[in-house]
Amino acid sequence: MDFSGSHILSIDQFERSDVEKLFSLAESLEPYSNKEKITKVLDGAILGNMFFEPSTRTRISFGASFNLLGGSVREITEAGSSSLAKGESLADTAQVLSGYSDIIVLRHPDEGSVRKFSESSRVPVINGGDGSNEHPSQALLDLYTIKKELSQNSKTVDGLKIALVGDLKFGRAVHSLCKILSLYDNVKIKLISPEELRLPEKDTQLLQSKNVTLEETENLEEGIKDVDIIYVTRVQEERFKNKDDAKKYKGLLSLNKEIYTANCEPNTVIMHPLPRDSRKHANELDSDLYENPNLAIFRQADNGISIRMALFALVLGVEDQVEKTSRAVNWHVTRDH
Amino acid sequence: MDFSGSHILSIDQFERSDVEKLFSLAESLEPYSNKEKITKVLDGAILGNMFFEPSTRTRISFGASFNLLGGSVREITEAGSSSLAKGESLADTAQVLSGYSDIIVLRHPDEGSVRKFSESSRVPVINGGDGSNEHPSQALLDLYTIKKELSQNSKTVDGLKIALVGDLKFGRAVHSLCKILSLYDNVKIKLISPEELRLPEKDTQLLQSKNVTLEETENLEEGIKDVDIIYVTRVQEERFKNKDDAKKYKGLLSLNKEIYTANCEPNTVIMHPLPRDSRKHANELDSDLYENPNLAIFRQADNGISIRMALFALVLGVEDQVEKTSRAVNWHVTRDH
Amino acid sequence: MDFSGSHILSIDQFERSDVEKLFSLAESLEPYSNKEKITKVLDGAILGNMFFEPSTRTRISFGASFNLLGGSVREITEAGSSSLAKGESLADTAQVLSGYSDIIVLRHPDEGSVRKFSESSRVPVINGGDGSNEHPSQALLDLYTIKKELSQNSKTVDGLKIALVGDLKFGRAVHSLCKILSLYDNVKIKLISPEELRLPEKDTQLLQSKNVTLEETENLEEGIKDVDIIYVTRVQEERFKNKDDAKKYKGLLSLNKEIYTANCEPNTVIMHPLPRDSRKHANELDSDLYENPNLAIFRQADNGISIRMALFALVLGVEDQVEKTSRAVNWHVTRDH
Repeated sequence: MDFSGSHILSIDQFERSDVEKLFSLAESLEPYSNKEKITKVLDGAILGNMFFEPSTRTRISFGASFNLLGGSVREITEAGSSSLAKGESLADTAQVLSGYSDIIVLRHPDEGSVRKFSESSRVPVINGGDGSNEHPSQALLDLYTIKKELSQNSKTVDGLKIALVGDLKFGRAVHSLCKILSLYDNVKIKLISPEELRLPEKDTQLLQSKNVTLEETENLEEGIKDVDIIYVTRVQEERFKNKDDAKKYKGLLSLNKEIYTANCEPNTVIMHPLPRDSRKHANELDSDLYENPNLAIFRQADNGISIRMALFALVLGVEDQVEKTSRAVNWHVTRDH
Repeated sequence: MDFSGSHILSIDQFERSDVEKLFSLAESLEPYSNKEKITKVLDGAILGNMFFEPSTRTRISFGASFNLLGGSVREITEAGSSSLAKGESLADTAQVLSGYSDIIVLRHPDEGSVRKFSESSRVPVINGGDGSNEHPSQALLDLYTIKKELSQNSKTVDGLKIALVGDLKFGRAVHSLCKILSLYDNVKIKLISPEELRLPEKDTQLLQSKNVTLEETENLEEGIKDVDIIYVTRVQEERFKNKDDAKKYKGLLSLNKEIYTANCEPNTVIMHPLPRDSRKHANELDSDLYENPNLAIFRQADNGISIRMALFALVLGVEDQVEKTSRAVNWHVTRDH
Repeated sequence: MDFSGSHILSIDQFERSDVEKLFSLAESLEPYSNKEKITKVLDGAILGNMFFEPSTRTRISFGASFNLLGGSVREITEAGSSSLAKGESLADTAQVLSGYSDIIVLRHPDEGSVRKFSESSRVPVINGGDGSNEHPSQALLDLYTIKKELSQNSKTVDGLKIALVGDLKFGRAVHSLCKILSLYDNVKIKLISPEELRLPEKDTQLLQSKNVTLEETENLEEGIKDVDIIYVTRVQEERFKNKDDAKKYKGLLSLNKEIYTANCEPNTVIMHPLPRDSRKHANELDSDLYENPNLAIFRQADNGISIRMALFALVLGVEDQVEKTSRAVNWHVTRDH
């Protein structure tokens, strides 16, 4: 598919060849995200970074990615929009805001709102998360991380064995990741969660229809044996009707050095969409894993930059022009990936 | 008047020749707002986009306009300033903030505050709205829209027949628009509002002293016959002492397809300063008018970009240099005006 | 010391030679802060301007300084971070945010938090204020102002006589200023405060160990005789456990024209870290001093730009490249220093 001029609303828009094209572009952009070079390919373009729900890191990641391509960023960071409060429809908001920028990233608390907004937008819209529905750039950066980490061990996504750990019911990242993994062959997923936070049936059915092998367990030690990747998630307490219900699941599935060492293959990679809850009662990923070279959680966050740069470049159709305005970085780079 | 280095505080600063000079500049900037070209004429300049009252769209519109000229934007979006809370005078705030930028746009809830701020500012200040007092860029973009829409039908602002509909008492946009219309010849204004929300007497007196023909009515169907433009406004409930009072006026004057078709000339243009209240009990402009090509409300919002670019260019004295740093747009432009 | 790639956490990192190198760089950057020239030396670089506590002017000053070097700015302005609320550790936040920018300015309400953050950051961090602990750029701009103002009267910081007035107990700016003044010879400080708001003993001991001459008094008139600089501060009521306690100190030490004229040398310079509390009950610096050419408070705020530009240039190691990308300003500059 040619994404030039398209909205990016759902991971369902991506076929395997699209994913691979995107990843190849993302990889070619790494010298820019790693600060070996700069490009001004989007000099003069404006991103409308519209966050109608707080999300510091996703907002900054999209904004920084656009800056790295040379573009400018205008932002909404308010939880509530003054115009929506005055009774404006989402269609009107889309019409007006799309007159102010060349591309929009929209984060909105309501499921389906980003699609609705995109129908009235005159510029391409990227879904930056709509309620518990979709957050496609997260799934893409997760898969990109899996691919890169596996390639260190000469493995591929075809044949992947992955354990998904934690709140599989409410975790939006997990649902989208499952969908995108189903594009690959011979994938085996171990679902590790408390009974009440199991992956929803519609997701398990989808996976089975795509020939993904599934195993479910409530036992962490057992589930993480013989996998390439452990993908841990936070209990999404903000999605529980009763917050006290959430508390009983916190701390049930905590991965630490001892459990990892006793059960995992030597190169098993640890991922997490972040933020991880490091408070004692939750502690889903213990800080004693900090020194483990297989802890990929910050490389995963970093990968968001290359993936989002690639999405912007594809949608704005400049993927072949990045090099043209490229030049060396002239400041002292301390950053270490 | 030479606006280079001047504050833009009130629509009263503009004579007809100033308005026409500004509009001619705005028109010449449309290839930039339409993304046919980019310019870097204000590369290196900083806008202080200081909003001490929430106003997402006006803030983004000013910021995007400055970006389109190549400049950078620093912003205040907080409703309350931490410094004002510590007892700082507006004069001190102006002194300090004007040391950080080359030009300031100030939105502030208090009438007269922007003028007061400008007296201590060391850089030019543009009034982005001070309470129910002034919002000059809105009046200018409204008139610019009227002129452009009329010219499609080979008409001019001289001889204009316009209906102003809704809350004519509290609507700041309407007051400023009346003032600027009074610079033109043979203008005829139909004022359509509930008795209690009539245009204030000082405005009607001003208009009559400038030979503007006025007619008042509470009847929408009657008022919109034989006009070139219908300018609809929202009931400004936030300005009512008693919010319940506002409710009884909501929905009294709702324009929809049926009323439009039965009463209007075929090319009658529909405008609205936005946001329009689309909730059922208000619905001042029905969504069944969405497909009507004479619905100019989003072109009107778009025009804000060219007008604000023109204001920046005039005040910073770069109107003759825009072309020098001009180049083609290299990304895929989907936007359709 | 070579600051390239270093964190700037505390004024204690600076020796006299470092201060002088920084000031010499700041001076060379004044044509840029004064808008005589622009530079693009940091074109392509991104500042993460992360304010986890509201501070409009410090935030804008850092952001504008980075823009003046040609860089882009991504910002956090929320009082509370959504990620911290979800239980994320400061170390994780640092890891993630440092993947999004080339340098970070961090303002945080907790003492010591900026140092802790810097330990996990992969890019240099500048302390933008951590609680009542440190705010090194404020001390540097204060000393820079003192040096510049004194040089007008052919005086130097060696031999300085300065009166510190007001809340010397809670004023972070005063504590850091004392530390940096102790690097100079023959400095004489008059401490003027209510008994209960005296400079903490650890500060007086430090000053005495460095051979700074100290005198303490509660009498403003007496204290400001025979000094080069009067540095007035606000009662930091937000730091008092009981806000009513703060009130009794407000207005006790108010400098006005009459007191100044009766007691000061003709060229005695007046400084204040701002914001000053101009409400009648406080009024630490009367507005009747507005016309006094020795009132340096706004020059002091302006100096923050050159100092912060110099800090960025040093830490990113571009101090020798600023001129290379320099060009003339092409817009109408009204700003008057």
